Amino acid sequence: MKIICRKSDLVKAVSIALRAVAVRSISSIQECILITAAHGYITLTSNNLEMCIETKVEGEIEVEGKIALDAKMLSDIVRKLPEEEVTIRTDDHMVATILCGKAVFNISGKDGEDFSGLPVLEKEDRIEISQLTLKDVISKTIFSIAQTDSNRILTGELFEINGSGMKVVALDSHRVAIQRVELKESYGHKKVIIPGKTLNEMTKILSGEADDIIGMYCLPNHVIFEMEGTTVVSALIEGEYIDIDRMLSRDYETKVKINRQVMLGCIDRATLFVREGDKKPIIMDIQDGFMKLNIDSVLGSMDEDIDIEKEGRDIMIGFNPKFMVDALRAISDEDVSLYFLNPKAPCFIRNDKESYTYIILPVNFVR
Amino acid sequence: MKIICRKSDLVKAVSIALRAVAVRSISSIQECILITAAHGYITLTSNNLEMCIETKVEGEIEVEGKIALDAKMLSDIVRKLPEEEVTIRTDDHMVATILCGKAVFNISGKDGEDFSGLPVLEKEDRIEISQLTLKDVISKTIFSIAQTDSNRILTGELFEINGSGMKVVALDSHRVAIQRVELKESYGHKKVIIPGKTLNEMTKILSGEADDIIGMYCLPNHVIFEMEGTTVVSALIEGEYIDIDRMLSRDYETKVKINRQVMLGCIDRATLFVREGDKKPIIMDIQDGFMKLNIDSVLGSMDEDIDIEKEGRDIMIGFNPKFMVDALRAISDEDVSLYFLNPKAPCFIRNDKESYTYIILPVNFVR
Repeated sequence: MKIICRKSDLVKAVSIALRAVAVRSISSIQECILITAAHGYITLTSNNLEMCIETKVEGEIEVEGKIALDAKMLSDIVRKLPEEEVTIRTDDHMVATILCGKAVFNISGKDGEDFSGLPVLEKEDRIEISQLTLKDVISKTIFSIAQTDSNRILTGELFEINGSGMKVVALDSHRVAIQRVELKESYGHKKVIIPGKTLNEMTKILSGEADDIIGMYCLPNHVIFEMEGTTVVSALIEGEYIDIDRMLSRDYETKVKINRQVMLGCIDRATLFVREGDKKPIIMDIQDGFMKLNIDSVLGSMDEDIDIEKEGRDIMIGFNPKFMVDALRAISDEDVSLYFLNPKAPCFIRNDKESYTYIILPVNFVR
Repeated sequence: MKIICRKSDLVKAVSIALRAVAVRSISSIQECILITAAHGYITLTSNNLEMCIETKVEGEIEVEGKIALDAKMLSDIVRKLPEEEVTIRTDDHMVATILCGKAVFNISGKDGEDFSGLPVLEKEDRIEISQLTLKDVISKTIFSIAQTDSNRILTGELFEINGSGMKVVALDSHRVAIQRVELKESYGHKKVIIPGKTLNEMTKILSGEADDIIGMYCLPNHVIFEMEGTTVVSALIEGEYIDIDRMLSRDYETKVKINRQVMLGCIDRATLFVREGDKKPIIMDIQDGFMKLNIDSVLGSMDEDIDIEKEGRDIMIGFNPKFMVDALRAISDEDVSLYFLNPKAPCFIRNDKESYTYIILPVNFVR
C-alpha cells in the first residue's frame, strides 16, 4: 500500500475513527485502525464490536492495499506531524513507514485480514435530520440515562419516530428527560433504543451545523448514521422501553415561572454544602412572588430568596440539587416554568409546546 | 466582627491567601484563613508553617474583630457569590454569616487566638525587582529542581545577589538551569536557597507586570516578598549550595546554531516512542549543515533531519529528550546555540551574554 494525503485530513479522519476503537480488547486487532486503499478510496475503519466507524480520507492512492495500525500510536504520530503532505507506505513485513516533511517513522502493523470491519446491512427507510438537531437532542437528554447496568434498557435512549415527529427519551429511577423535534419529512413508525455510549461518541462526531444532514436507518438490530464521508453503525439495546406516556400527567396545583440563570446560580451556591454521597436536598418554599431556597447540612446553611411568578397553591418541596441543575442547564430559554402537584409528586419542567419535558422526583425531608 | 467588601476584591485576596493554607495539618486551625479587621485594615492570613501569606482586602470595617474560617469552604463560597457587596459578620458563638445579594450563608468558624500568623522579623536590605522579571526567572529554572527529598538543598533554588547582578540556579543530578538578570540598583552580597514550593506559589501570586515592583528581603532564615497589599514570608533551606562555577567550562569542540521551534517539534515527535520510565535517548548525529535526530524503541523508530549551522567537529551524542525539551521551552529566542565537547561531556545551551545557561548531561547509547 502507498497513499499520500494532507496532514489535516488525516488527523480529522483518525480522530473520528478513534471513537470506535476497542480498549483492552480480547482481540488486539480491534485496538487498531484499519487503513484501506482500494477502488479509489482511502478509508479508516474502527470497530469495538458495539460500534463501528468507517470514514474516508481525501488523498491519492499510489499502491492499493491495507494495514491495521495501533490506533493510539497512529493518532499520536499524525497529530504531531508538521503541516505537510503525509505518505504512508507498507512493506512485505507489515511495517508501515510514515513520511512527512523530513520526518520518517517506522511502526509495525498487522495484516488487515482478521480485522472485523463494517457489518453488511440492508439499508432501508432513510430518515434525514440536521446534524445540529441530533447533537442538540442527545446532549439535552443524555445526562438522564442510568449510570449502572442493572437495567440495561435504561443505559440507552429511546428514539421514536412517528410521522414527522421524533421523540427522544432518557430516564433513570429519579428523573426523565424528553425532547421532541419536528423532522422535515414524514416517516413510518420506528422505535429503537440506542446505547448511551454510542450517542456520547456521536455528539463528538456530529458537526453541529444546521445545514449538515445526517441519514439515520433504524434497522431491527442496528442503527446506521450516515454523514458526509463517515458511516457509524451501532448495535441497538434489545427489549421494550418503559412506557412513559402514563407518567406524563398535565395536572398541577402550583405553577412557577422563574429566571433560569438566577435559579441555577442559587442552586450552585447551595450545593457548596452538599458533599459527595450526601443526600441533602435543597428545599424550595414557594410562596406568592418569591421562592425561598434553603439547604442545611453539617457544613453550614444557606438561604436565598428568588423572585418568581406563581399561580396556584403555596408548596414546600425538596429536590436533589444535581438533578435540578442538570435539567436547568439543558434548557436554553431565559425563563422556565415548573409545575408541582404535591410534595410527593414529581416536578415537571416544560415549555408550552412541550419541545422539552424534564420530570424530577422530589426527595423527602424533615423540617 | 463585621466587614463589607466587594466580591471581586474578596475573591482575589482569598485566592492569594489560599496558596499558603496547610493541607491535612496536625493543627486544623492552619487549614483556615484568618480574617482580621483591626486598625482600619481587613487582612487575610494563611500559614502552612513553611510559608505564610498576609494580604489586605479593600473594604469597610463596621465592627473590629477576627475569625478563622475553613479556607476551602470560604474560597468555594466567595467564588460562587453574585457580583455584589459582601458582608461578613460573626456572632458570639463563632458562627460567621456571609451575606451577598439575597443569599445568606452560615458557617462555623474558629477563634483566631491559636492561629499562627506572620512571624515578626527584622526587615533590612530591601532588594527591588520587577514582578515580571522575578516570575520569569523562576519559571525558566524551576523545572530543574530535584523532585525527591534525598538532597533537600536541590529541592530549592539558589538566589545570589552580587552588586546589581542576580543569579538564579536550579539543578538536579542530570542538568542545571541558570538565569542571570541585572537589577536597577546595586546591593551587598546575598545568597539564599528558597524552597521550590514557595517559588511555585510565587509564580501564581506575582502579577507578571514589568512595572509592578516587589521588595525582597534575604534574612538569615527567611525570605520576605513584599508586594502591593501582600506579604509572603518563607523559611529558607539551610546548608551550602553546590558550587556550580567549576562546572561552567567554556571549552567546546562543536557549536551548533538551530531554530528552536523546529528542534522542539522534532523532539516532540521522537518522544512518541518513549514510554514512561523508559530511558530511551534521542541520538543527535551532528554533521555539516544538518543534524540527524533518531530514536529507536520497541514501539518503532523515527528519523528526522534538521538544518543547522555548525562550527567545529562532527559529533554523535544522546540525550534524555525531556531535559532537552524543558530547556528549549524555557528559552524565548528564535535560534539557540548548543555547545558540545565530546559524547561524555554535558551540552551547554546559552546565549552570548549568558543571561541563560542550561547544562544537560548526555546519556550513553549503543549503536
